[in-house]
Amino acid sequence: MSSRFSGLTPLLAPRSVAVLGASSDPTRISGRPIAYMRSQGFQGALYPVNPNRAEIQGLKAYPSIADLPETPDVAIVAIAAEHVPAAVEELGKKGCKGIVMFSAGFAEMDEAGEAVQRDMVATARSYGMRLLGPNCLGVFDARRSYYATFSSSFDSGWPVPGRIGIASQSGAYGTHLYTLARNRGIGASLCVMTGNEGDVTVGECIGWLAENPEVDVIAVYAEGIREAPGLIAALEAARAAKKPVVMQKVGRSELGTKAAKSHTASIAGDDAVTEAVMNEFGVYRARNSEEMLDIAHTATRKIYPVKNTLGVITVSGGAGVLISDVAESLGLNMPEMPLDAQKKLRDLVPFCAPRNPVDATAQVSNDVTLVKTFTESMVRDGGYSSVLGFFSMTASSRRWPAISEQLNVVRDENPGRLYALSVIVPPEGRDKLEADGWVVHEDPTRAVVAIDAMGRFGAAFAKPAGLPALAVPAVTLPAQTPSEAEAKRLLAGAGIASAPEAECATVEQAVAAAERFGYPVVMKILSADILHKSEIGGVLLDVSDPASVRDGFALLLERAKAAAPTAKLDGVLVAKQLKGGVECILGIHRDPVFGPMAMFGLGGIFVEVLKDVVFRRCPFGPDVAEEMIRSIKGSPLLLGARGKKTADVKALAETLSRLSAFAVAAGPRLQSIDLNPVFAMPEGEGAFAVDAVIEVGD
Amino acid sequence: MSSRFSGLTPLLAPRSVAVLGASSDPTRISGRPIAYMRSQGFQGALYPVNPNRAEIQGLKAYPSIADLPETPDVAIVAIAAEHVPAAVEELGKKGCKGIVMFSAGFAEMDEAGEAVQRDMVATARSYGMRLLGPNCLGVFDARRSYYATFSSSFDSGWPVPGRIGIASQSGAYGTHLYTLARNRGIGASLCVMTGNEGDVTVGECIGWLAENPEVDVIAVYAEGIREAPGLIAALEAARAAKKPVVMQKVGRSELGTKAAKSHTASIAGDDAVTEAVMNEFGVYRARNSEEMLDIAHTATRKIYPVKNTLGVITVSGGAGVLISDVAESLGLNMPEMPLDAQKKLRDLVPFCAPRNPVDATAQVSNDVTLVKTFTESMVRDGGYSSVLGFFSMTASSRRWPAISEQLNVVRDENPGRLYALSVIVPPEGRDKLEADGWVVHEDPTRAVVAIDAMGRFGAAFAKPAGLPALAVPAVTLPAQTPSEAEAKRLLAGAGIASAPEAECATVEQAVAAAERFGYPVVMKILSADILHKSEIGGVLLDVSDPASVRDGFALLLERAKAAAPTAKLDGVLVAKQLKGGVECILGIHRDPVFGPMAMFGLGGIFVEVLKDVVFRRCPFGPDVAEEMIRSIKGSPLLLGARGKKTADVKALAETLSRLSAFAVAAGPRLQSIDLNPVFAMPEGEGAFAVDAVIEVGD
Repeated sequence: MSSRFSGLTPLLAPRSVAVLGASSDPTRISGRPIAYMRSQGFQGALYPVNPNRAEIQGLKAYPSIADLPETPDVAIVAIAAEHVPAAVEELGKKGCKGIVMFSAGFAEMDEAGEAVQRDMVATARSYGMRLLGPNCLGVFDARRSYYATFSSSFDSGWPVPGRIGIASQSGAYGTHLYTLARNRGIGASLCVMTGNEGDVTVGECIGWLAENPEVDVIAVYAEGIREAPGLIAALEAARAAKKPVVMQKVGRSELGTKAAKSHTASIAGDDAVTEAVMNEFGVYRARNSEEMLDIAHTATRKIYPVKNTLGVITVSGGAGVLISDVAESLGLNMPEMPLDAQKKLRDLVPFCAPRNPVDATAQVSNDVTLVKTFTESMVRDGGYSSVLGFFSMTASSRRWPAISEQLNVVRDENPGRLYALSVIVPPEGRDKLEADGWVVHEDPTRAVVAIDAMGRFGAAFAKPAGLPALAVPAVTLPAQTPSEAEAKRLLAGAGIASAPEAECATVEQAVAAAERFGYPVVMKILSADILHKSEIGGVLLDVSDPASVRDGFALLLERAKAAAPTAKLDGVLVAKQLKGGVECILGIHRDPVFGPMAMFGLGGIFVEVLKDVVFRRCPFGPDVAEEMIRSIKGSPLLLGARGKKTADVKALAETLSRLSAFAVAAGPRLQSIDLNPVFAMPEGEGAFAVDAVIEVGD
Repeated sequence: MSSRFSGLTPLLAPRSVAVLGASSDPTRISGRPIAYMRSQGFQGALYPVNPNRAEIQGLKAYPSIADLPETPDVAIVAIAAEHVPAAVEELGKKGCKGIVMFSAGFAEMDEAGEAVQRDMVATARSYGMRLLGPNCLGVFDARRSYYATFSSSFDSGWPVPGRIGIASQSGAYGTHLYTLARNRGIGASLCVMTGNEGDVTVGECIGWLAENPEVDVIAVYAEGIREAPGLIAALEAARAAKKPVVMQKVGRSELGTKAAKSHTASIAGDDAVTEAVMNEFGVYRARNSEEMLDIAHTATRKIYPVKNTLGVITVSGGAGVLISDVAESLGLNMPEMPLDAQKKLRDLVPFCAPRNPVDATAQVSNDVTLVKTFTESMVRDGGYSSVLGFFSMTASSRRWPAISEQLNVVRDENPGRLYALSVIVPPEGRDKLEADGWVVHEDPTRAVVAIDAMGRFGAAFAKPAGLPALAVPAVTLPAQTPSEAEAKRLLAGAGIASAPEAECATVEQAVAAAERFGYPVVMKILSADILHKSEIGGVLLDVSDPASVRDGFALLLERAKAAAPTAKLDGVLVAKQLKGGVECILGIHRDPVFGPMAMFGLGGIFVEVLKDVVFRRCPFGPDVAEEMIRSIKGSPLLLGARGKKTADVKALAETLSRLSAFAVAAGPRLQSIDLNPVFAMPEGEGAFAVDAVIEVGD
C-alpha cells in the first residue's frame, strides 16, 4: 500500500518487531507478545530487548535498542512510564518507524501525564515514527501471526481467519468483540486497539483497513472522535472501496460521556455530530455488539443490493408475522409475489401462503422438491434481492438434509442474491451452511436487521456524489459579534434572504418603514449588546397601525434601558411580519472536532421538546439540504400535512445550502449562527430569516 | 387448583390421555405423542385408539372411544378433518374433559371450515369439554412427561426443567422459543400452543400458568388477542401472584397483520390497544425472542426491585460507557457511589474509577481481594439493588476462579439483590455461574435490558390499585348520533365541561349570547346531519363584534345549505372562544375485543403527524388519567415548557377519567367519542371541550 494511510503499515503489518522490557515469563504483559508470536509462527524478525538476560523465551535478547542488529519496523513498549520518554527518543534515533505502547500512566491519569504524553508524541513525530497508544492493548493480525498485544483472550483460543477488520478505542471492548466473533466462528483476523490515541486515531486505523486488500468489512468501537480529517478520509476511502463500516459509537448519554472521561482521556465529542458524519458516509450504527457482528458477518458475503427487497420462505408460517413487523419497522421492502406466480404456487399446494412471506406448508414432507419450486419462484418471479428462510428447528430434524439440498440448488443457480437462514442448528451444522454460502442466524429479528443493513450499504455505495454547495462570495466577519441587522446584511451577501426590514433610529423612520412594508409589522430593539431580545421583552409582534408603532418604539427603548442600562442602543428594527409560513430553525455550530455543523429543525416545540433536528457537516449542496429537511419527523408539516399548503422546500434547501457555504467561508472565528425562526413560505414564495444571530469568537 | 382457570387442568395436566388415530410409527404426527410419553415416562394412563390394531407402540390399543376402559381426562385428536366432528361428539358422550386437536382444515382454511369449527366447539362446550386448537401443535409439560404435541424439536433434545411457562399462539414460534431456551440451558418445562383458538385462548393459558405453583415466569408469543375477559383475568392473576409476564406481541405492522390473516384465522386486533392492556398490567413487551428469553430467565431469580438502581463493576473500564448509555436510554438509574466510599476506594487503588461504573483496574491481578472490597462497597455503601459485573473474556482466563470466588462471597453475604455478569465463558462455565446464583449474559447491552425489566416488574407489582373512575350518573344514549349540542349536554351530565355556549335559532339570540360571553366568540352551524363542520366551512373563529356575529350567522346558514341541501338546520351555536389553553384531543373508540378504549393526545400535528397518543381501557381514575397525560412525548407543553404557564392537568385528568366512566356507562351502542379540541387552560382554570362528536350505533 502506498497511500494516505500507508504510514501505519510498519505498525500494523511489520516485518520486524522489537519488544522493550521483554519478559521471560510468557504470562506477563511484556512476555505475552513474544509467546504469542512464537507459538503462532510470526515470519518476521523478533528482537527481545532486556539488559539483564541473554535469552528470552528461546530468542537471543539484546541489552539495548542501540544494540539491535537491524532497525525494527515496530517496537513494543511495555516498560514503566518514567522510562518511556527516553526509550521513545532512542527508538527515534535508531530509525524505528512505529511504536505500540502498552505502558500507562499518561493522559488517562492526570494533566501532568497528559503533558508527558504530548511531548512523547512530539518526539516520535519528529523522527517520523507513528505511535499506537499509550495505554493501549495493541494490535494483532492472525494471518501474519503478528501479536503486538497482551490480551489474555488467546488463553481460550486463537482468532478465526476472515475478512473482517476491527478497530476499537477500548482494549477491553475490542477484546470482547473479537472473542465473541471467534466463538461464533466469524472470521476477524485483524484487530487494532488505540487506547489513549496520543497519535494514531481510530479514524486512521479505519483508513488503513479500508486500503488493506485482506479486509472486506470494517467493525469499529468508538467512544469519541478526536480528529476529523483522518476519519473523513478513512470513511471516503472505505466508501470508494465499497467496504461497509459498522460502528458501535458509545457515549451518547450524559452518563456515558462522564464514564468515558473517567476511564480514558477521551474527548467524547457531541454524539449527534458524530452520528451525522456516520450518516453522511453510510456508516451503520450498531446498537450492540451482537448487531455489529451480525452485520459485519453478513457483509462479508459482499452482496449489497441497491434496492433491497426481502422474500421470506417457510414451511410452517408462524414467524412470518414477526418478520413482516421487523421489516416494516426498518423500512425494508417486502413486496408481494406477482399474482400469476401466486396462482401457480396455489395450484401446487392449495393451502399454501404464496404472497410473501411464502409458506410452502408441511406439504414439503410429502414432496421435498416443493422447497425448490417455491424458493425458485421467489427468486425468479418475485425477483427478491434477499431471501430469508425461516426453518427454525426443522434444521435440526431428519427432514433437513433433503430440504437444504433443495435450497442449495436454488442458491447455486441464482447467484448475486443474499441468502440467509433463520435456523436452530448445532455449531457444526451452522458451519456447513455458512460454507455452502448461507448467512445463518438463530433469531429471525436479527436476520432481518442484518439483511436490511446490506441494502443500506448498497444504497450508500450507489449514491452519486452530492451537488456542490451553492456558491457564496468571500465572507469577512466583523471583529465582534455583529448586531442583528449587520448579521442579516452579511447573510444577504450570501443570498440568504430576510424578511423586508429597516433599521430605524427615530420614531418617524419607524412609522415610514411600517407604512412602506404594510401592516402588521414586527418591531425589535436594535443593539449589538443585546443578543437574546425576546428574553427582555425586546420584540413586539402584530404591530398593526401607526399609533402602535409610535407606542412600541418608546416601549422597546424603555425595556432595553431597564434590562441593560449600559447597552448601546441603535434604535428599533421594523420588519414585515410574515404570515402563513412554517416556522423553522436553521443553525450553525462549530464542533471542536468536525468544524462547522449545520442544523435544521422545525421551530418551537419541535426543537425544544421533541429534539426533532438533523445535523450535517458543512458545506453541502441543496440536494443534501433537501434530504435533511425531509428526514425530520415533523417534515409532513412542510410537505402539506393537515390540509396546509406545501412549503417552499426548494427555497428552504437553498437557504440551508448557502448557510453551510457561508459557515465555511466565514472561517474559524465563526462560533455559531442562529436563524430562528426562518419562515418557509408556501411553494414559490421563498424562505426568509426573521431573526439572525451570528456569534464571532477570537 | 380450583379457580378461574382450573378448567384447563384436564387439558394441560391430565392423569389419563387417549390418542385418536394413534399410529404405530413413532415419527408420524399421530405416533409422536405416544412415543414421547413412553420414552419420557408419563405416569398417567395412555390409551391409543385405533380400530385396525390390537397394539400400538407396545400399548394395548382400543378400537373406539366407547371401548376405552375409563374416561380419559384428555383426548389427542389427530385424524382427518372430516371425521373430527363425530369424534368430538363421541368424546363428549364418553365424558372426556379436554381435547388437544392437531387436525387442521378449519377456520384457517375458509369460511366453511370456520363454520365446522364453530359447530365443533359448540358441541364440545355442550359436554363441558375444553378444546385446544384445532390446527395446533399442542402442549407439553416436561416435569410430568406429558407430551400432547407432534413437534419434532425433541429430535434434538428434551426440555431443560425449569420454572418458565410458555404460551404461544403459533406452534412454529412456540417451538422455536423453547428450543432456544433449551439450547441456552434455560429451564422452560411447560409450553402450550393454541393454534386456531377455536375455544381455549392464549389468555386463558396465561391464567392457568399464573395459577400453576410450578411456574414463576410466563413467556407469551401472540399475534392477536381474540377474547378480552380471559386475558384480563389472567393478567390480574399473574400480577396478584407476582409472576412476571413477558410477551412478544407481533402483528404491529400493516404487513404483519396481513401475514397473520394469511396464516391463521387470527383477528389481529389493533396493536396499540393490546399494548395499552399490556402496559396496564406491567406486561413486558419483548422486541425479539432473545430479549424474551433473557428477561424470562433473569426473572426466575425472583428479584424484582421496586426502585431499581444499577451498579457496575469491572476490572478494565471499556464497557462502562456502553453500559451507561444503555441504562440511561432505558431510564434505569445508575447513581454515583457516595463520595466517602469513592474516597475509600481511591485510597486503595489510586487510579481506580470509583464513581459508577466502578473500575477496580488490573490492580486486582496483584491483589484479588480488591474485587471483594470494591463490590462489597458497591452493595453496602452504594446500596444498588442490581449489580452487573462486566468481566468479558477475563472469565475465560486463569485469573477467573480467584475473582469469581471473591464475587461469590459478596453475593452470599448480601442476598436479596440481583447479581448479573457479562462474561464470555463456555457453556459449562456459564452453568456453574448460574448455579452459583448469577444471571449470565454475554452481551452487556442485553444484560442491562434484562436488569431494567426486573425493576419494571417490581414497580408494577408494588403499584397500589388505581383510584376508581370518577362517578358519573347513568347515561341514556339517544337513538341516533346526537348533534354537537346534545352531545355536550350528555357529557355535561357526566361533569365534562364545555366552553360556555348557546344554541341560537335566530340572529338576535346569537348576538345576545355573544354579548353575554364576551368577545371573541366561535360560531358553528348547528345540525345533527352535519358531523364534520369544519370541512364545509361551518366554523367561524375570532368573531369579535355584533356586526360580525350577524354576518356570520347568515354566512353559516348559506354554506350549510350549499354543502348539504337536505340537512335539517337548527341554527347556529355561539361559544366563548378560549384563549391561552393547550389544545388536546380526548377520545373514545370501541375496540371489538377490549371494548371502550380512551385515547389522549395533544391536538393538531401531535396526533396527526407524530401519532403521539396514549390509549387505556375504560374506566379508570384520575390518577391513571394523569399518568397517561404525562406519558406522551409532548407532555412538556402541558407542564410549562417554553416559558408557558403550566396547564390545569388536574382538571384535564378528571375530564379524561369522567370520559372513561361515561364510555362504560353509555353501554355497547357507543361507537366513539371525539372531544377535539379540549382546551387545557392554565392551572386552576379548568379544561373545556370545544367540540364534541358522539357516534352511536345500533
